[in-house]
Amino acid sequence: MAERFVSERNLKFLLYEVLDAPSLAQYPYYQDHSRETFDLVLDTAMKMGRDLFKPTLQEMDKEQPKLVDGQVFVHPIVKSIMRECGEGGWIAASASYQMGGQQLPLMIAGAARFIFSAANYSGSVYPFLTAGAAHLIESFGSEELKETYIPKMFAGEWQGTMALTEPQAGSSLSDITTQAEPTDQGYYKIRGQKIFISASDHDGVENIVHLMLAKIKGAPPGVKGISLFVVPKKRPNEGGQLVPNDVNVTQIYHKLGYRGSPIAQLSMGENDDCRGYLVGEPHRGLPYMFQMMNEARIDVGMGAAAIASAAYYASLEYTKERPQGRRLGAKDPTAPQIPIIQHPDVKRMLLFQRAVVEGSLSIILQCAKYSDVARVSGDSAEKERNFLLLELLTPVAKSYPSEMGILSVSQGLQCLGGYGYCEEYPLEQHYRDARIHPIHEGTTGIQGLDLLGRKVIMQNGKAFQLYLQEVEKIIAEAKGVSGLETHAVELEEALEKLKKITAHLIGVAMKGNVELFLADATLYLEFFGIIAVAWQWLLQAIVVQKALGGGATGADVDFYKGKLYAFRFYFGYELPKIEGLARRLMDTDGLTVEIKEEFFND
Amino acid sequence: MAERFVSERNLKFLLYEVLDAPSLAQYPYYQDHSRETFDLVLDTAMKMGRDLFKPTLQEMDKEQPKLVDGQVFVHPIVKSIMRECGEGGWIAASASYQMGGQQLPLMIAGAARFIFSAANYSGSVYPFLTAGAAHLIESFGSEELKETYIPKMFAGEWQGTMALTEPQAGSSLSDITTQAEPTDQGYYKIRGQKIFISASDHDGVENIVHLMLAKIKGAPPGVKGISLFVVPKKRPNEGGQLVPNDVNVTQIYHKLGYRGSPIAQLSMGENDDCRGYLVGEPHRGLPYMFQMMNEARIDVGMGAAAIASAAYYASLEYTKERPQGRRLGAKDPTAPQIPIIQHPDVKRMLLFQRAVVEGSLSIILQCAKYSDVARVSGDSAEKERNFLLLELLTPVAKSYPSEMGILSVSQGLQCLGGYGYCEEYPLEQHYRDARIHPIHEGTTGIQGLDLLGRKVIMQNGKAFQLYLQEVEKIIAEAKGVSGLETHAVELEEALEKLKKITAHLIGVAMKGNVELFLADATLYLEFFGIIAVAWQWLLQAIVVQKALGGGATGADVDFYKGKLYAFRFYFGYELPKIEGLARRLMDTDGLTVEIKEEFFND
Repeated sequence: MAERFVSERNLKFLLYEVLDAPSLAQYPYYQDHSRETFDLVLDTAMKMGRDLFKPTLQEMDKEQPKLVDGQVFVHPIVKSIMRECGEGGWIAASASYQMGGQQLPLMIAGAARFIFSAANYSGSVYPFLTAGAAHLIESFGSEELKETYIPKMFAGEWQGTMALTEPQAGSSLSDITTQAEPTDQGYYKIRGQKIFISASDHDGVENIVHLMLAKIKGAPPGVKGISLFVVPKKRPNEGGQLVPNDVNVTQIYHKLGYRGSPIAQLSMGENDDCRGYLVGEPHRGLPYMFQMMNEARIDVGMGAAAIASAAYYASLEYTKERPQGRRLGAKDPTAPQIPIIQHPDVKRMLLFQRAVVEGSLSIILQCAKYSDVARVSGDSAEKERNFLLLELLTPVAKSYPSEMGILSVSQGLQCLGGYGYCEEYPLEQHYRDARIHPIHEGTTGIQGLDLLGRKVIMQNGKAFQLYLQEVEKIIAEAKGVSGLETHAVELEEALEKLKKITAHLIGVAMKGNVELFLADATLYLEFFGIIAVAWQWLLQAIVVQKALGGGATGADVDFYKGKLYAFRFYFGYELPKIEGLARRLMDTDGLTVEIKEEFFND
Repeated sequence: MAERFVSERNLKFLLYEVLDAPSLAQYPYYQDHSRETFDLVLDTAMKMGRDLFKPTLQEMDKEQPKLVDGQVFVHPIVKSIMRECGEGGWIAASASYQMGGQQLPLMIAGAARFIFSAANYSGSVYPFLTAGAAHLIESFGSEELKETYIPKMFAGEWQGTMALTEPQAGSSLSDITTQAEPTDQGYYKIRGQKIFISASDHDGVENIVHLMLAKIKGAPPGVKGISLFVVPKKRPNEGGQLVPNDVNVTQIYHKLGYRGSPIAQLSMGENDDCRGYLVGEPHRGLPYMFQMMNEARIDVGMGAAAIASAAYYASLEYTKERPQGRRLGAKDPTAPQIPIIQHPDVKRMLLFQRAVVEGSLSIILQCAKYSDVARVSGDSAEKERNFLLLELLTPVAKSYPSEMGILSVSQGLQCLGGYGYCEEYPLEQHYRDARIHPIHEGTTGIQGLDLLGRKVIMQNGKAFQLYLQEVEKIIAEAKGVSGLETHAVELEEALEKLKKITAHLIGVAMKGNVELFLADATLYLEFFGIIAVAWQWLLQAIVVQKALGGGATGADVDFYKGKLYAFRFYFGYELPKIEGLARRLMDTDGLTVEIKEEFFND
């Protein structure tokens, strides 16, 4: 069975050599941190990944959550995960000292998340979902809410969730109908249903805290009438005891993968006794929730890259060990067989995975850095710049790893041939697990609309312009690095295509045809994502070329040379995919807008 | 639950309007057939698909085969499937009258296979595998073998299999070690192991007949020493009773999907009492087996297209029923939600599926027609021409549907959002089932090597030249059809790229670097496949334009207009994908040949 699930060397390369995480210590908020504290975190995370998360990867898949008499039961390891992640400070990691956290940058907390998720994606969801929910209370909740909920959540004793989706309101959140009726006791009475809520009930914790969207009676229609509530499974009564809060699990879903984490349907207020506690102001729920959703979207990208990482190393291990065939053109059938890693087509499948995994991780950590700086910078221009870049790139950091991760895992599975399709190897589980990511936290279609319909055009294209500057800076730098000149020009040409297509589509928007403008937004997202990841690969290649020219030795040389091949692979095999997309994106013929429903009859 | 799994309208459009299956009646072998007999076959197949195959689709997935005391037990429906397919003449359909068959063209037998596989892929494997194995005995076996085995197999009483793979010999068949020791009794003693053998044991039939590759003691090394044997699970003794033949099931595999069909590991000769009966001449086993493998490869393409078809119609049904959101740009949140089929991005996902499913089916039926004509034509030039086209296009007909089918099913799943990921809808099963196709009957990598390394260059490129002529003929015709002129030119340009790249790669081959020549064979296959399917779409569009111009009415108009959108979609969204591939294929920099194993260390 595959042992390795991430490359620590690559993680540290990205964090230290490429993205300079230790430079964050220049900001007062992170001043206690350094490469040493980061290393300590990463080393501990690796140990937990190996010892706590990885061993139950298969078991959690096989022994799925069960719903018995309204209570969901999960694998016993979940209790250990929550406890150890609580006690070890992982749930609170990026929270402020004041709230009991460690003020760890998201870059590093995210890298730990990557490690845990690669070891066992389902297992990693419990603590990180809790962290996201707690941050929301931390940002917008009253002191009383903070005191009541956050310490328990950070300790891993209470699970946090985000409860948005309803039977009639998935992608269209404006249609939620869960109702909150004000009382004169300070709380609201909640009544409604939520579906597809991850980790929304289980026996690994003492209580569940739902961060739930609902509409206050009489609220304006649409998204402007959505408020955010804390709705616990059990509420503390005056004496401080936990009593049931009329939140009922009506079913759990049986899923293709991601089976170690229960996803449930909830019914609130069946007995008219479900209390919700307003977070922040009424009707401001959606903007609040977006903080959590953006964090969750980066997390999804991280989870997708993590599964692809585990699949990559499992397939790599197999290709080194499996003898099959001889070199193409070899004539002697009695010569010994060679390990399949020596076949060019297998190396292609491995390089593809590596290009996706390491490219995805790079863009995600880049976003984490923007997030860290945006959070703490005292310079308002820098803060805004980083915030806008984060906003723009969030749909990319969510979707590129999610969509490409599926293909990457699939190539990993393919490396194993028939064994890849069998349960005795981990690939088939990774293949099932990975498929969730283009769906949850906003489908790829929704991310496309977000990127083109909101982010690219917001503030008259300010974020987009800032992004172009970021990429142009790297192109200019690469032009001066020996061996990267042609790649720099290729990215420059790609960026020109991006500008041209964006201008073309905005031209369509200006004519007022919103549907036509956004018809191929998903393709635009794909196109944009390929270029963004190329930027990250060029950034990595600059560091590599300097390191190779600067006297790297030993295993480092192999690492850097491997990096360079993966970089060349990305530019040779992946970046050209923009050509076909560009051709389509310039052709706004309205095909998918026009075609009528009845043309699908036969 | 989704009811529809294929479009009969489309099937008949392809068979009658596009590919003119009834014209096969001009050959004496098919002279008793006509559109009427074909219709009867298809109508019966649809009824069987609905009534026999479809109802157990989910059950066969959930109640997987079990191995108990050396015997594999499968779902009881398998017995009914084999019996009904035997009694109804489905297993013998394309066999000669002499052998008890109906001399049905593969075009029509294949269409029936498509229907059965779309209804229940696992269930359809049993009879069609039996048919393939029986054809092999029919073609190369002795009279005694024919008499002993074929009637039982055609009757559905005995299961046929193809037993090639061994633990150390998967893609590299030259390394098989299963041994056949001659005796003076006319039979051979077989000793060895086979793995990944589909339907290789089950209680739905009385006996299993393995068409097995083995090496006769003292045979030459490599593929030139491979012979073909009939190795039954139970052999008839002198009295005509069936007695055990020392073929033992040592394990069954637990798989990602395709769970309704057992795949087992076999051990022959553990008690030195396994008899095998030579088929044809010694050491000619591989060429014989290729007859079955080519048939099986077309079957795999058909199965892949069939699963994608079922997934498409399931997702189509959902998108018509599921209300979510409003038209892009609509401002009133209180307006009713619209069915998601009205969203351009959802229509894009549906059109993508349709472009893949109908394009795949078209190229497969085209190959079936080549096969039919090659089989029976009395004109040796015509026979050779059709044979060569079939040979060239077989890897495409296998791989395009297999690879694109996965993406197609994935888009179907995506149309359902969270529900697509849950077991209560059929998409998640289709997603698992579909993943087998790029693996079995020769992986996609092997198909790429077959296409570029064998088929394109065989007989000095004769097959390739014949293919270019076929496509050029359609381009020329389309240029004269109103509304298709620009598409004809687009395909012409694509074909020029194909010629240019093929010439470039052959140039590399001429320099003697076989590894470099074939390093990107998988990409070449993808590139070739996209163009081949474009050719089939243009062929369809010509028929459609003529029908629309010729007074089509009623539902036909919707059908033809839908076809035209799917065609335009293919040319607008799919064909441009060759651009990026072409750029890569011209760049034979040897990246995947050069990279060393140690560069994958970190």
